[in-house]
Amino acid sequence: MSDTPNTNDDAGRDARHKARMVRKKEVVDSKIAAAQNERGVIVITTGNGKGKSSSGFGMVVRAMGHGMRTGVVQFIKGAFPSGEEMFLRRFPEECEFHVMGEGYTWETQDRARDVAKAEAAWEVARRMLRDPSFDLILFDELNIALKLHYLDLDTVIADLRARPPKQHVVITGRGAPSALIEAADTVTDMTPVKHAFEQGIKAQPGVEM
Amino acid sequence: MSDTPNTNDDAGRDARHKARMVRKKEVVDSKIAAAQNERGVIVITTGNGKGKSSSGFGMVVRAMGHGMRTGVVQFIKGAFPSGEEMFLRRFPEECEFHVMGEGYTWETQDRARDVAKAEAAWEVARRMLRDPSFDLILFDELNIALKLHYLDLDTVIADLRARPPKQHVVITGRGAPSALIEAADTVTDMTPVKHAFEQGIKAQPGVEM
Repeated sequence: MSDTPNTNDDAGRDARHKARMVRKKEVVDSKIAAAQNERGVIVITTGNGKGKSSSGFGMVVRAMGHGMRTGVVQFIKGAFPSGEEMFLRRFPEECEFHVMGEGYTWETQDRARDVAKAEAAWEVARRMLRDPSFDLILFDELNIALKLHYLDLDTVIADLRARPPKQHVVITGRGAPSALIEAADTVTDMTPVKHAFEQGIKAQPGVEM
Repeated sequence: MSDTPNTNDDAGRDARHKARMVRKKEVVDSKIAAAQNERGVIVITTGNGKGKSSSGFGMVVRAMGHGMRTGVVQFIKGAFPSGEEMFLRRFPEECEFHVMGEGYTWETQDRARDVAKAEAAWEVARRMLRDPSFDLILFDELNIALKLHYLDLDTVIADLRARPPKQHVVITGRGAPSALIEAADTVTDMTPVKHAFEQGIKAQPGVEM
């Protein structure tokens, strides 16, 4: 290491880098020491950007990698099975997968039917929330069903609060209601910077479906 | 359906809903008709919020669900194998998985070694970018290696541009450089709203690791 850390040579750069990293490690280590509570968390991904559902499915496979039992309820069903569905249905012991919704609402154009489908989906969700054998549950696109008032928000929050203390729940979809954000532990807003679709590129398997 | 759509009863609500959804379907359908190009895309997830890597791994399993071949290069290695790694290593034919980095830089505190490790990781990445048998590749935490100048940005972008035309690439990590954002098709900024860690809750398997 150089004795002249203000020079622009590599040794000086490395020395300054090391000093910064030592300080950063102290900050990170002290935060880790302070965060010692273990309990089930509610994670929400919302916003208009891409990656909300993908992030939820990434957490499902991460949990499966740790030998945890997972459940998925998709509140909005597409015209075709998604790649996630086709993949996760290969592991029925590790992931209980339900697709319950009925297409996007502008496809069905029938509010009463959408409400009935959402309520049936929540019955499945509630059963999982009462079963401590599920370590992590994903409610994909639940936020949309709440935003459209297909489900009663107070009932949903009460069921979430009554779940087993170690159970993690991941909720995705744009338009998460503020009371749900209040009830959650970790919330991320996926903000679009740019999107291939707006540039005339088709939704493609593996990327969007 | 009611003849008086401005009443507050259920039939009126349903009729107004249906009219809105008919208009929405027209807008969505016309956008879909306009977006007909199919080609490999570069997807970036960046920002300080949770869900960047999870979203990348979600896209990997989505692609695997479609029978696509995938590759993963992790540019930052944790102290323990992640849940994603433990899970995806079960499918070596479907996903070629490499963990190449050397911990967070404030853990290693050795810039020269970090640079050498990042360069070795990019050699693996470049091999995948030259192999059309990979349909979708994830470069997890590549943005951090670029932000810290462990890799030459122009070289990385040139290698990305030279890849097979149908190949998709997903790049994660905070601090994506603007030239990389410029080269990408879809970019999402994961914006933190709240995080369990800041409330004293420990990082837990299946959620953060």
